[in-house]
Amino acid sequence: MKLVECIPNFSEGRNKDKIADIVSTIKNSDGVRLLDVSSDYDHNRTVVTFIGGPEDVCQAAYKACEKGCEVIDMSKHTGEHPRMGATDVIPFVPVKDVTMDECITLAGKLGKRIGDNLHIPVYMYESASTKPERADLAYIRRGQYEGFFDKIKKTGWEPDFGPREVSIKSGVTAVGARPPLVAFNVNLNSRNLGIAKKIAKAVRNSSGGYRYVKAIGVNITEKNMVQVSMNMTDYKKTPLYRVYEQIKMEAARYGVSIAECEIIGLLPSQALIDTAVSYLQIHSFDNNQLLENHIFE
Amino acid sequence: MKLVECIPNFSEGRNKDKIADIVSTIKNSDGVRLLDVSSDYDHNRTVVTFIGGPEDVCQAAYKACEKGCEVIDMSKHTGEHPRMGATDVIPFVPVKDVTMDECITLAGKLGKRIGDNLHIPVYMYESASTKPERADLAYIRRGQYEGFFDKIKKTGWEPDFGPREVSIKSGVTAVGARPPLVAFNVNLNSRNLGIAKKIAKAVRNSSGGYRYVKAIGVNITEKNMVQVSMNMTDYKKTPLYRVYEQIKMEAARYGVSIAECEIIGLLPSQALIDTAVSYLQIHSFDNNQLLENHIFE
Repeated sequence: MKLVECIPNFSEGRNKDKIADIVSTIKNSDGVRLLDVSSDYDHNRTVVTFIGGPEDVCQAAYKACEKGCEVIDMSKHTGEHPRMGATDVIPFVPVKDVTMDECITLAGKLGKRIGDNLHIPVYMYESASTKPERADLAYIRRGQYEGFFDKIKKTGWEPDFGPREVSIKSGVTAVGARPPLVAFNVNLNSRNLGIAKKIAKAVRNSSGGYRYVKAIGVNITEKNMVQVSMNMTDYKKTPLYRVYEQIKMEAARYGVSIAECEIIGLLPSQALIDTAVSYLQIHSFDNNQLLENHIFE
Repeated sequence: MKLVECIPNFSEGRNKDKIADIVSTIKNSDGVRLLDVSSDYDHNRTVVTFIGGPEDVCQAAYKACEKGCEVIDMSKHTGEHPRMGATDVIPFVPVKDVTMDECITLAGKLGKRIGDNLHIPVYMYESASTKPERADLAYIRRGQYEGFFDKIKKTGWEPDFGPREVSIKSGVTAVGARPPLVAFNVNLNSRNLGIAKKIAKAVRNSSGGYRYVKAIGVNITEKNMVQVSMNMTDYKKTPLYRVYEQIKMEAARYGVSIAECEIIGLLPSQALIDTAVSYLQIHSFDNNQLLENHIFE
Protein backbone atom coordinates (compact mmCIF):
# COMPACT_ATOMS: atom_id res chain seq x y z
CA MET A 1 0.00 0.00 0.00
CA LYS A 2 1.41 3.36 -1.07
CA LEU A 3 1.84 5.75 1.81
CA VAL A 4 2.91 9.40 1.76
CA GLU A 5 3.41 11.68 4.78
CA CYS A 6 2.62 15.38 4.54
CA ILE A 7 3.65 18.01 7.11
CA PRO A 8 2.18 21.42 6.17
CA ASN A 9 3.21 24.42 8.33
CA PHE A 10 0.68 27.21 8.84
CA SER A 11 1.38 30.76 10.06
CA GLU A 12 -1.13 30.62 12.91
CA GLY A 13 -0.29 29.23 16.34
CA ARG A 14 -2.50 31.32 18.64
CA ASN A 15 -6.11 31.44 17.49
CA LYS A 16 -7.60 28.06 18.38
CA ASP A 17 -10.65 28.49 16.13
CA LYS A 18 -8.58 29.23 13.07
CA ILE A 19 -6.26 26.29 13.80
CA ALA A 20 -9.29 24.01 14.26
CA ASP A 21 -10.69 25.22 10.93
CA ILE A 22 -7.50 24.26 9.13
CA VAL A 23 -7.14 20.92 10.90
CA SER A 24 -10.77 20.00 10.22
CA THR A 25 -10.13 20.06 6.46
CA ILE A 26 -7.65 17.22 6.97
CA LYS A 27 -9.82 15.36 9.48
CA ASN A 28 -12.67 15.49 6.97
CA SER A 29 -10.58 14.34 4.01
CA ASP A 30 -11.06 10.79 2.76
CA GLY A 31 -8.19 8.31 2.90
CA VAL A 32 -5.86 10.28 5.17
CA ARG A 33 -5.11 9.99 8.86
CA LEU A 34 -4.18 12.95 11.05
CA LEU A 35 -1.14 12.03 13.15
CA ASP A 36 -0.19 15.21 14.96
CA VAL A 37 -0.96 18.91 15.40
CA SER A 38 1.68 21.08 17.14
CA SER A 39 0.96 24.77 17.69
CA ASP A 40 3.51 27.17 19.14
CA TYR A 41 2.40 30.53 20.56
CA ASP A 42 5.74 32.33 20.29
CA HIS A 43 6.38 31.04 16.79
CA ASN A 44 2.70 31.72 15.98
CA ARG A 45 2.86 28.64 13.82
CA THR A 46 1.16 25.24 13.57
CA VAL A 47 2.71 22.07 12.16
CA VAL A 48 0.25 19.40 11.04
CA THR A 49 1.29 15.81 10.25
CA PHE A 50 -0.89 13.37 8.31
CA ILE A 51 -0.48 10.33 6.07
CA GLY A 52 -2.40 8.49 3.39
CA GLY A 53 -2.30 7.39 -0.23
CA PRO A 54 -0.61 9.85 -2.64
CA GLU A 55 -3.74 11.29 -4.29
CA ASP A 56 -5.68 11.53 -1.04
CA VAL A 57 -2.78 13.29 0.68
CA CYS A 58 -2.46 15.72 -2.22
CA GLN A 59 -6.17 16.57 -2.06
CA ALA A 60 -6.14 17.02 1.74
CA ALA A 61 -3.06 19.27 1.50
CA TYR A 62 -4.81 21.44 -1.09
CA LYS A 63 -7.93 21.77 1.06
CA ALA A 64 -5.85 22.68 4.13
CA CYS A 65 -3.87 25.25 2.13
CA GLU A 66 -7.09 26.77 0.79
CA LYS A 67 -8.47 27.06 4.33
CA GLY A 68 -5.17 28.50 5.61
CA CYS A 69 -5.38 31.25 2.96
CA GLU A 70 -8.95 31.95 4.01
CA VAL A 71 -8.45 32.28 7.77
CA ILE A 72 -4.89 33.70 8.01
CA ASP A 73 -3.95 37.28 7.11
CA MET A 74 -0.18 37.48 6.61
CA SER A 75 -0.20 41.29 6.64
CA LYS A 76 -1.05 41.06 10.36
CA HIS A 77 1.19 38.11 11.25
CA THR A 78 4.01 38.29 13.77
CA GLY A 79 6.02 35.41 15.22
CA GLU A 80 9.54 34.25 15.99
CA HIS A 81 9.79 31.55 13.34
CA PRO A 82 10.81 32.66 9.83
CA ARG A 83 7.78 32.56 7.51
CA MET A 84 6.65 33.82 4.13
CA GLY A 85 3.08 32.58 3.66
CA ALA A 86 -0.20 31.67 5.34
CA THR A 87 0.51 28.09 4.33
CA ASP A 88 4.23 28.50 4.68
CA VAL A 89 5.53 25.15 3.51
CA ILE A 90 4.10 21.80 2.37
CA PRO A 91 6.56 18.88 2.17
CA PHE A 92 5.66 15.39 0.92
CA VAL A 93 7.64 12.47 2.34
CA PRO A 94 7.72 8.95 0.84
CA VAL A 95 6.90 6.46 3.61
CA LYS A 96 5.93 3.12 2.05
CA ASP A 97 5.97 1.69 -1.48
CA VAL A 98 6.43 5.21 -2.87
CA THR A 99 9.56 6.64 -4.52
CA MET A 100 10.94 10.13 -4.07
CA ASP A 101 10.17 10.70 -7.76
CA GLU A 102 6.49 10.01 -7.12
CA CYS A 103 6.54 12.55 -4.28
CA ILE A 104 8.22 15.10 -6.55
CA THR A 105 5.47 14.58 -9.14
CA LEU A 106 2.84 14.93 -6.43
CA ALA A 107 4.46 18.16 -5.17
CA GLY A 108 4.45 19.58 -8.71
CA LYS A 109 0.77 18.74 -9.09
CA LEU A 110 -0.13 20.43 -5.81
CA GLY A 111 2.10 23.44 -6.54
CA LYS A 112 0.39 24.00 -9.90
CA ARG A 113 -3.07 23.67 -8.37
CA ILE A 114 -2.26 26.17 -5.60
CA GLY A 115 -0.70 28.61 -8.08
CA ASP A 116 -3.53 28.34 -10.61
CA ASN A 117 -6.54 28.27 -8.28
CA LEU A 118 -5.47 30.17 -5.18
CA HIS A 119 -3.34 32.72 -7.10
CA ILE A 120 -0.37 32.38 -4.76
CA PRO A 121 3.27 32.29 -5.94
CA VAL A 122 4.60 28.76 -5.32
CA TYR A 123 8.27 27.78 -4.99
CA MET A 124 9.27 24.14 -5.27
CA TYR A 125 11.99 23.14 -2.76
CA GLU A 126 14.29 20.29 -1.59
CA SER A 127 14.04 17.27 -3.92
CA ALA A 128 11.24 18.99 -5.87
CA SER A 129 13.25 22.17 -6.55
CA THR A 130 13.70 23.33 -10.14
CA LYS A 131 16.94 25.23 -9.48
CA PRO A 132 19.80 23.94 -7.30
CA GLU A 133 19.74 26.94 -4.94
CA ARG A 134 16.02 26.47 -4.30
CA ALA A 135 16.63 23.05 -2.76
CA ASP A 136 17.40 24.99 0.43
CA LEU A 137 14.18 26.25 2.02
CA ALA A 138 16.09 28.81 4.11
CA TYR A 139 17.44 30.33 0.85
CA ILE A 140 13.92 30.73 -0.56
CA ARG A 141 12.56 32.17 2.68
CA ARG A 142 15.34 34.71 3.28
CA GLY A 143 13.81 38.17 3.85
CA GLN A 144 10.56 36.45 4.79
CA TYR A 145 7.03 37.64 3.90
CA GLU A 146 7.92 41.31 4.20
CA GLY A 147 10.94 41.03 1.92
CA PHE A 148 9.24 38.97 -0.77
CA PHE A 149 7.35 41.90 -2.34
CA ASP A 150 10.66 43.28 -3.68
CA LYS A 151 12.48 39.97 -4.04
CA ILE A 152 9.92 38.42 -6.37
CA LYS A 153 10.64 41.09 -9.01
CA LYS A 154 14.38 40.28 -9.06
CA THR A 155 16.10 38.08 -11.63
CA GLY A 156 15.95 34.40 -10.72
CA TRP A 157 12.98 34.81 -8.40
CA GLU A 158 10.11 33.93 -10.72
CA PRO A 159 7.90 31.41 -8.91
CA ASP A 160 7.49 27.86 -10.22
CA PHE A 161 3.71 28.27 -10.28
CA GLY A 162 1.19 31.06 -9.78
CA PRO A 163 1.49 34.83 -10.36
CA ARG A 164 4.76 36.79 -10.04
CA GLU A 165 3.10 38.91 -7.41
CA VAL A 166 3.01 38.24 -3.68
CA SER A 167 -0.49 37.82 -2.26
CA ILE A 168 -0.87 40.44 0.49
CA LYS A 169 -3.14 38.16 2.51
CA SER A 170 -1.47 34.80 1.81
CA GLY A 171 2.16 35.58 0.97
CA VAL A 172 3.96 32.82 -0.94
CA THR A 173 4.06 29.06 -0.37
CA ALA A 174 6.85 26.49 -0.71
CA VAL A 175 5.91 22.96 -1.81
CA GLY A 176 8.48 20.19 -1.73
CA ALA A 177 9.46 16.56 -1.40
CA ARG A 178 12.06 15.32 1.05
CA PRO A 179 13.18 12.14 2.81
CA PRO A 180 11.65 11.39 6.20
CA LEU A 181 13.35 13.30 9.00
CA VAL A 182 14.30 11.47 12.20
CA ALA A 183 14.56 13.56 15.36
CA PHE A 184 17.33 11.77 17.27
CA ASN A 185 18.68 13.01 20.61
CA VAL A 186 21.67 11.66 22.52
CA ASN A 187 21.82 12.41 26.26
CA LEU A 188 25.27 12.45 27.82
CA ASN A 189 26.34 11.55 31.34
CA SER A 190 27.61 15.10 31.79
CA ARG A 191 26.41 18.56 32.83
CA ASN A 192 29.06 20.24 30.70
CA LEU A 193 27.23 22.05 27.90
CA GLY A 194 30.54 22.76 26.18
CA ILE A 195 31.05 19.03 25.54
CA ALA A 196 27.59 18.64 23.96
CA LYS A 197 28.25 21.67 21.76
CA LYS A 198 31.63 20.33 20.66
CA ILE A 199 30.14 16.96 19.77
CA ALA A 200 27.23 18.59 17.89
CA LYS A 201 29.80 20.57 15.92
CA ALA A 202 31.74 17.39 15.13
CA VAL A 203 28.76 15.49 13.70
CA ARG A 204 26.76 18.17 11.87
CA ASN A 205 27.10 18.97 8.20
CA SER A 206 27.39 22.74 8.60
CA SER A 207 30.67 22.49 10.48
CA GLY A 208 32.29 19.56 8.66
CA GLY A 209 30.38 16.52 9.95
CA TYR A 210 27.96 14.18 8.25
CA ARG A 211 26.07 15.45 5.20
CA TYR A 212 22.55 14.76 6.51
CA VAL A 213 22.90 15.77 10.16
CA LYS A 214 21.74 18.99 11.81
CA ALA A 215 22.85 19.14 15.43
CA ILE A 216 22.97 21.46 18.44
CA GLY A 217 24.20 21.00 22.00
CA VAL A 218 21.56 21.81 24.63
CA ASN A 219 20.97 21.63 28.37
CA ILE A 220 18.29 19.19 29.59
CA THR A 221 17.73 20.71 33.02
CA GLU A 222 15.01 18.25 34.05
CA LYS A 223 17.46 15.38 33.58
CA ASN A 224 20.51 17.28 34.80
CA MET A 225 22.32 16.32 31.59
CA VAL A 226 23.44 17.82 28.34
CA GLN A 227 22.15 16.61 25.00
CA VAL A 228 23.22 16.43 21.38
CA SER A 229 19.89 17.19 19.69
CA MET A 230 19.78 16.19 16.02
CA ASN A 231 17.66 16.12 12.92
CA MET A 232 18.72 13.25 10.68
CA THR A 233 17.55 14.54 7.31
CA ASP A 234 18.31 11.42 5.25
CA TYR A 235 18.72 8.30 7.35
CA LYS A 236 19.51 6.19 4.28
CA LYS A 237 22.58 8.22 3.36
CA THR A 238 23.67 9.15 6.89
CA PRO A 239 22.50 6.18 8.99
CA LEU A 240 21.69 6.45 12.69
CA TYR A 241 24.21 3.85 13.81
CA ARG A 242 27.13 5.72 12.25
CA VAL A 243 26.31 8.97 14.02
CA TYR A 244 25.61 7.14 17.28
CA GLU A 245 29.01 5.45 17.12
CA GLN A 246 30.77 8.71 16.34
CA ILE A 247 29.09 10.49 19.24
CA LYS A 248 30.08 7.63 21.55
CA MET A 249 33.68 7.98 20.37
CA GLU A 250 33.74 11.79 20.60
CA ALA A 251 32.20 11.68 24.09
CA ALA A 252 34.83 9.16 25.22
CA ARG A 253 37.48 11.77 24.38
CA TYR A 254 36.09 13.78 27.29
CA GLY A 255 35.60 10.74 29.52
CA VAL A 256 31.85 10.98 28.99
CA SER A 257 29.46 8.16 28.10
CA ILE A 258 26.02 8.09 26.47
CA ALA A 259 23.27 7.87 29.11
CA GLU A 260 20.40 7.24 26.71
CA CYS A 261 19.03 8.16 23.32
CA GLU A 262 15.58 9.37 22.29
CA ILE A 263 13.59 9.26 19.09
CA ILE A 264 11.15 12.18 19.11
CA GLY A 265 7.90 11.67 17.25
CA LEU A 266 7.57 9.32 14.32
CA LEU A 267 10.12 7.52 12.20
CA PRO A 268 9.99 4.95 9.41
CA SER A 269 10.69 1.46 10.76
CA GLN A 270 13.33 1.10 8.03
CA ALA A 271 15.60 3.50 9.96
CA LEU A 272 15.67 1.04 12.88
CA ILE A 273 15.82 -2.06 10.69
CA ASP A 274 18.89 -0.64 8.91
CA THR A 275 20.42 0.04 12.33
CA ALA A 276 19.87 -3.53 13.51
CA VAL A 277 21.17 -5.03 10.26
CA SER A 278 24.36 -3.00 10.58
CA TYR A 279 24.87 -3.69 14.28
CA LEU A 280 24.30 -7.44 13.82
CA GLN A 281 26.81 -7.52 10.92
CA ILE A 282 24.23 -8.94 8.53
CA HIS A 283 25.92 -8.51 5.15
CA SER A 284 23.03 -9.55 2.98
CA PHE A 285 19.56 -8.67 4.12
CA ASP A 286 16.50 -8.41 1.94
CA ASN A 287 13.41 -6.56 3.13
CA ASN A 288 11.38 -9.45 1.75
CA GLN A 289 12.64 -11.35 4.78
CA LEU A 290 10.35 -9.20 6.92
CA LEU A 291 7.12 -11.07 7.49
CA GLU A 292 5.12 -7.83 7.49
CA ASN A 293 6.14 -7.17 3.91
CA HIS A 294 3.99 -10.11 2.87
CA ILE A 295 0.85 -8.52 4.17
CA PHE A 296 -1.62 -8.11 1.39
CA GLU A 297 -4.49 -5.70 1.07
CA MET B 1 -4.89 -6.26 10.23
CA LYS B 2 -4.66 -9.56 12.04
CA LEU B 3 -2.01 -11.83 10.61
CA VAL B 4 -1.15 -15.42 11.52
CA GLU B 5 1.64 -17.54 10.06
CA CYS B 6 1.19 -21.29 9.62
CA ILE B 7 3.99 -23.75 8.85
CA PRO B 8 2.56 -27.25 8.31
CA ASN B 9 5.07 -30.09 7.80
CA PHE B 10 4.07 -32.98 5.53
CA SER B 11 5.68 -36.43 5.33
CA GLU B 12 6.34 -36.29 1.60
CA GLY B 13 9.48 -34.73 0.11
CA ARG B 14 10.02 -36.79 -3.03
CA ASN B 15 6.87 -37.14 -5.15
CA LYS B 16 6.44 -33.77 -6.88
CA ASP B 17 2.82 -34.45 -7.88
CA LYS B 18 1.78 -35.22 -4.34
CA ILE B 19 3.58 -32.14 -3.01
CA ALA B 20 1.92 -29.99 -5.67
CA ASP B 21 -1.48 -31.42 -4.71
CA ILE B 22 -0.97 -30.39 -1.09
CA VAL B 23 0.44 -26.95 -1.92
CA SER B 24 -2.40 -26.22 -4.36
CA THR B 25 -4.94 -26.43 -1.52
CA ILE B 26 -3.17 -23.46 0.08
CA LYS B 27 -2.68 -21.59 -3.19
CA ASN B 28 -6.41 -21.96 -3.86
CA SER B 29 -7.50 -20.84 -0.40
CA ASP B 30 -8.98 -17.38 -0.04
CA GLY B 31 -7.25 -14.78 2.10
CA VAL B 32 -3.90 -16.52 2.54
CA ARG B 33 -0.56 -16.06 0.82
CA LEU B 34 1.91 -18.88 0.21
CA LEU B 35 5.39 -17.73 1.27
CA ASP B 36 7.58 -20.78 0.93
CA VAL B 37 7.69 -24.50 0.08
CA SER B 38 10.81 -26.44 1.09
CA SER B 39 11.01 -30.15 0.22
CA ASP B 40 13.88 -32.39 1.33
CA TYR B 41 14.50 -35.71 -0.37
CA ASP B 42 16.48 -37.38 2.41
CA HIS B 43 14.06 -36.21 5.07
CA ASN B 44 11.19 -37.08 2.71
CA ARG B 45 9.41 -34.09 4.14
CA THR B 46 7.95 -30.78 2.94
CA VAL B 47 7.61 -27.62 5.00
CA VAL B 48 5.03 -25.11 3.75
CA THR B 49 4.85 -21.52 5.03
CA PHE B 50 1.84 -19.27 4.51
CA ILE B 51 0.15 -16.30 6.18
CA GLY B 52 -3.24 -14.66 6.33
CA GLY B 53 -6.07 -13.73 8.65
CA PRO B 54 -6.76 -16.19 11.51
CA GLU B 55 -9.91 -17.84 10.10
CA ASP B 56 -8.55 -18.03 6.55
CA VAL B 57 -5.31 -19.58 7.76
CA CYS B 58 -7.23 -22.12 9.83
CA GLN B 59 -9.36 -23.12 6.85
CA ALA B 60 -6.34 -23.42 4.50
CA ALA B 61 -4.47 -25.52 7.08
CA TYR B 62 -7.45 -27.89 7.34
CA LYS B 63 -7.68 -28.26 3.58
CA ALA B 64 -3.95 -28.95 3.30
CA CYS B 65 -4.11 -31.50 6.12
CA GLU B 66 -7.07 -33.22 4.44
CA LYS B 67 -5.14 -33.43 1.16
CA GLY B 68 -2.00 -34.65 2.95
CA CYS B 69 -4.03 -37.50 4.47
CA GLU B 70 -5.39 -38.33 1.04
CA VAL B 71 -2.13 -38.49 -0.93
CA ILE B 72 0.35 -39.74 1.72
CA ASP B 73 0.47 -43.29 3.05
CA MET B 74 2.45 -43.33 6.30
CA SER B 75 2.67 -47.14 6.29
CA LYS B 76 5.03 -46.81 3.31
CA HIS B 77 6.93 -43.71 4.49
CA THR B 78 10.67 -43.67 5.15
CA GLY B 79 12.86 -40.63 5.80
CA GLU B 80 15.56 -39.30 8.06
CA HIS B 81 13.49 -36.70 9.90
CA PRO B 82 11.46 -37.92 12.86
CA ARG B 83 7.74 -38.04 11.95
CA MET B 84 4.50 -39.49 13.17
CA GLY B 85 1.85 -38.44 10.65
CA ALA B 86 1.07 -37.60 7.03
CA THR B 87 0.50 -34.04 8.20
CA ASP B 88 3.11 -34.27 10.89
CA VAL B 89 2.78 -30.94 12.62
CA ILE B 90 0.80 -27.70 12.17
CA PRO B 91 2.00 -24.70 14.19
CA PHE B 92 0.25 -21.31 14.26
CA VAL B 93 2.38 -18.24 14.90
CA PRO B 94 1.07 -14.77 15.85
CA VAL B 95 2.57 -12.21 13.47
CA LYS B 96 0.58 -8.99 13.66
CA ASP B 97 -2.25 -7.70 15.87
CA VAL B 98 -2.84 -11.25 17.12
CA THR B 99 -2.12 -12.60 20.59
CA MET B 100 -0.71 -16.01 21.44
CA ASP B 101 -4.03 -16.78 23.12
CA GLU B 102 -5.85 -16.23 19.84
CA CYS B 103 -3.46 -18.66 18.14
CA ILE B 104 -4.03 -21.22 20.90
CA THR B 105 -7.79 -20.93 20.36
CA LEU B 106 -7.27 -21.28 16.62
CA ALA B 107 -5.10 -24.37 17.11
CA GLY B 108 -7.78 -25.94 19.31
CA LYS B 109 -10.42 -25.28 16.68
CA LEU B 110 -8.29 -26.87 13.95
CA GLY B 111 -7.31 -29.81 16.15
CA LYS B 112 -10.96 -30.59 16.92
CA ARG B 113 -11.92 -30.35 13.26
CA ILE B 114 -9.11 -32.69 12.19
CA GLY B 115 -9.93 -35.15 14.97
CA ASP B 116 -13.69 -35.11 14.33
CA ASN B 117 -13.75 -35.08 10.54
CA LEU B 118 -10.53 -36.80 9.44
CA HIS B 119 -10.55 -39.32 12.32
CA ILE B 120 -6.90 -38.75 13.20
CA PRO B 121 -5.57 -38.55 16.78
CA VAL B 122 -4.47 -34.96 17.39
CA TYR B 123 -2.00 -33.80 20.06
CA MET B 124 -1.82 -30.13 20.99
CA TYR B 125 1.76 -28.90 21.57
CA GLU B 126 3.91 -25.92 22.62
CA SER B 127 1.77 -23.00 23.84
CA ALA B 128 -1.40 -24.93 22.86
CA SER B 129 -0.48 -28.04 24.88
CA THR B 130 -2.94 -29.34 27.47
CA LYS B 131 -0.31 -31.06 29.63
CA PRO B 132 3.10 -29.56 30.50
CA GLU B 133 5.07 -32.48 29.02
CA ARG B 134 3.25 -32.13 25.69
CA ALA B 135 4.63 -28.62 25.19
CA ASP B 136 7.70 -30.41 23.83
CA LEU B 137 7.04 -31.73 20.33
CA ALA B 138 10.01 -34.11 20.56
CA TYR B 139 8.39 -35.70 23.63
CA ILE B 140 5.14 -36.30 21.76
CA ARG B 141 6.90 -37.67 18.69
CA ARG B 142 9.25 -40.05 20.53
CA GLY B 143 8.99 -43.52 18.97
CA GLN B 144 7.59 -41.94 15.82
CA TYR B 145 4.77 -43.29 13.63
CA GLU B 146 5.80 -46.92 14.17
CA GLY B 147 5.88 -46.59 17.95
CA PHE B 148 2.58 -44.75 18.29
CA PHE B 149 0.37 -47.81 17.81
CA ASP B 150 1.46 -49.09 21.22
CA LYS B 151 2.09 -45.72 22.86
CA ILE B 152 -1.42 -44.38 22.28
CA LYS B 153 -2.86 -47.15 24.51
CA LYS B 154 -0.66 -46.18 27.46
CA THR B 155 -1.74 -44.01 30.39
CA GLY B 156 -1.34 -40.32 29.68
CA TRP B 157 -1.35 -40.73 25.92
CA GLU B 158 -4.99 -40.10 25.11
CA PRO B 159 -5.08 -37.62 22.23
CA ASP B 160 -6.59 -34.14 22.70
CA PHE B 161 -8.95 -34.71 19.78
CA GLY B 162 -9.95 -37.59 17.51
CA PRO B 163 -9.99 -41.36 18.13
CA ARG B 164 -7.58 -43.13 20.52
CA GLU B 165 -6.45 -45.22 17.60
CA VAL B 166 -3.61 -44.42 15.19
CA SER B 167 -4.69 -44.07 11.57
CA ILE B 168 -2.60 -46.61 9.60
CA LYS B 169 -2.58 -44.34 6.55
CA SER B 170 -2.28 -40.94 8.26
CA GLY B 171 -0.63 -41.60 11.65
CA VAL B 172 -1.19 -38.84 14.20
CA THR B 173 -0.92 -35.06 13.89
CA ALA B 174 0.39 -32.39 16.28
CA VAL B 175 -1.27 -28.97 16.19
CA GLY B 176 0.21 -26.08 18.14
CA ALA B 177 0.86 -22.41 18.68
CA ARG B 178 4.31 -20.93 19.19
CA PRO B 179 6.19 -17.63 18.94
CA PRO B 180 7.87 -16.82 15.63
CA LEU B 181 11.20 -18.56 15.25
CA VAL B 182 14.21 -16.62 13.96
CA ALA B 183 16.95 -18.62 12.24
CA PHE B 184 20.08 -16.67 13.18
CA ASN B 185 23.59 -17.76 12.16
CA VAL B 186 26.87 -16.24 13.28
CA ASN B 187 29.91 -16.88 11.07
CA LEU B 188 33.28 -16.74 12.79
CA ASN B 189 36.66 -15.71 11.39
CA SER B 190 37.97 -19.17 12.18
CA ARG B 191 38.20 -22.65 10.69
CA ASN B 192 38.26 -24.25 14.11
CA LEU B 193 35.02 -26.21 14.48
CA GLY B 194 35.77 -26.81 18.15
CA ILE B 195 35.40 -23.08 18.86
CA ALA B 196 32.00 -22.89 17.14
CA LYS B 197 30.85 -25.95 19.09
CA LYS B 198 32.04 -24.48 22.39
CA ILE B 199 30.24 -21.19 21.71
CA ALA B 200 27.06 -23.01 20.65
CA LYS B 201 27.19 -24.90 23.92
CA ALA B 202 27.64 -21.66 25.86
CA VAL B 203 24.59 -19.94 24.40
CA ARG B 204 22.04 -22.75 24.02
CA ASN B 205 19.41 -23.61 26.61
CA SER B 206 20.09 -27.34 26.65
CA SER B 207 23.60 -26.90 28.04
CA GLY B 208 23.04 -23.93 30.38
CA GLY B 209 22.71 -20.98 28.00
CA TYR B 210 19.77 -18.79 27.14
CA ARG B 211 16.28 -20.23 27.61
CA TYR B 212 15.06 -19.67 24.01
CA VAL B 213 18.17 -20.57 22.03
CA LYS B 214 18.90 -23.81 20.18
CA ALA B 215 22.43 -23.83 18.78
CA ILE B 216 24.95 -26.05 17.06
CA GLY B 217 28.48 -25.45 15.76
CA VAL B 218 28.94 -26.33 12.09
CA ASN B 219 31.47 -26.06 9.28
CA ILE B 220 30.64 -23.72 6.38
CA THR B 221 33.04 -25.17 3.83
CA GLU B 222 32.06 -22.81 1.00
CA LYS B 223 33.08 -19.84 3.16
CA ASN B 224 35.99 -21.58 4.82
CA MET B 225 34.57 -20.63 8.20
CA VAL B 226 32.79 -22.16 11.14
CA GLN B 227 29.33 -21.08 12.19
CA VAL B 228 27.16 -20.94 15.30
CA SER B 229 23.80 -21.91 13.78
CA MET B 230 20.82 -20.99 15.95
CA ASN B 231 17.09 -21.09 16.24
CA MET B 232 15.87 -18.23 18.41
CA THR B 233 12.57 -19.66 19.61
CA ASP B 234 11.28 -16.55 21.41
CA TYR B 235 13.04 -13.36 20.37
CA LYS B 236 11.01 -11.31 22.84
CA LYS B 237 12.30 -13.22 25.87
CA THR B 238 15.78 -14.00 24.54
CA PRO B 239 16.57 -11.03 22.27
CA LEU B 240 18.96 -11.27 19.33
CA TYR B 241 21.30 -8.53 20.54
CA ARG B 242 21.99 -10.29 23.84
CA VAL B 243 23.00 -13.54 22.16
CA TYR B 244 25.01 -11.67 19.53
CA GLU B 245 26.95 -9.82 22.24
CA GLN B 246 27.57 -13.01 24.18
CA ILE B 247 28.87 -14.81 21.09
CA LYS B 248 31.19 -11.86 20.36
CA MET B 249 32.50 -12.06 23.91
CA GLU B 250 32.89 -15.86 23.91
CA ALA B 251 34.67 -15.74 20.52
CA ALA B 252 37.06 -13.06 21.80
CA ARG B 253 38.18 -15.56 24.45
CA TYR B 254 39.70 -17.57 21.61
CA GLY B 255 40.98 -14.50 19.77
CA VAL B 256 38.23 -14.95 17.18
CA SER B 257 35.91 -12.26 15.78
CA ILE B 258 32.50 -12.39 14.12
CA ALA B 259 32.83 -12.22 10.33
CA GLU B 260 29.13 -11.78 9.56
CA CYS B 261 25.68 -12.85 10.64
CA GLU B 262 22.77 -14.23 8.64
CA ILE B 263 19.04 -14.28 9.08
CA ILE B 264 17.67 -17.30 7.22
CA GLY B 265 14.17 -16.96 5.82
CA LEU B 266 11.56 -14.71 7.35
CA LEU B 267 11.42 -12.86 10.65
CA PRO B 268 9.04 -10.36 12.24
CA SER B 269 10.39 -6.81 11.86
CA GLN B 270 9.89 -6.40 15.62
CA ALA B 271 12.92 -8.65 16.24
CA LEU B 272 15.13 -6.13 14.42
CA ILE B 273 13.38 -3.06 15.84
CA ASP B 274 13.97 -4.40 19.37
CA THR B 275 17.62 -4.93 18.45
CA ALA B 276 18.05 -1.35 17.20
CA VAL B 277 16.26 0.13 20.22
CA SER B 278 18.59 -1.76 22.55
CA TYR B 279 21.76 -0.96 20.61
CA LEU B 280 20.88 2.75 20.38
CA GLN B 281 20.20 2.89 24.14
CA ILE B 282 16.65 4.14 23.60
CA HIS B 283 15.08 3.73 27.04
CA SER B 284 11.55 4.59 26.12
CA PHE B 285 10.32 3.58 22.72
CA ASP B 286 6.71 3.13 21.71
CA ASN B 287 5.79 1.15 18.60
CA ASN B 288 3.31 3.92 17.81
CA GLN B 289 6.38 5.96 16.86
CA LEU B 290 6.72 3.74 13.78
CA LEU B 291 5.06 5.49 10.86
CA GLU B 292 3.95 2.15 9.40
CA ASN B 293 1.82 1.47 12.45
CA HIS B 294 -0.45 4.31 11.36
CA ILE B 295 -1.33 2.57 8.15
CA PHE B 296 -5.05 2.00 8.02
CA GLU B 297 -7.02 -0.58 6.12
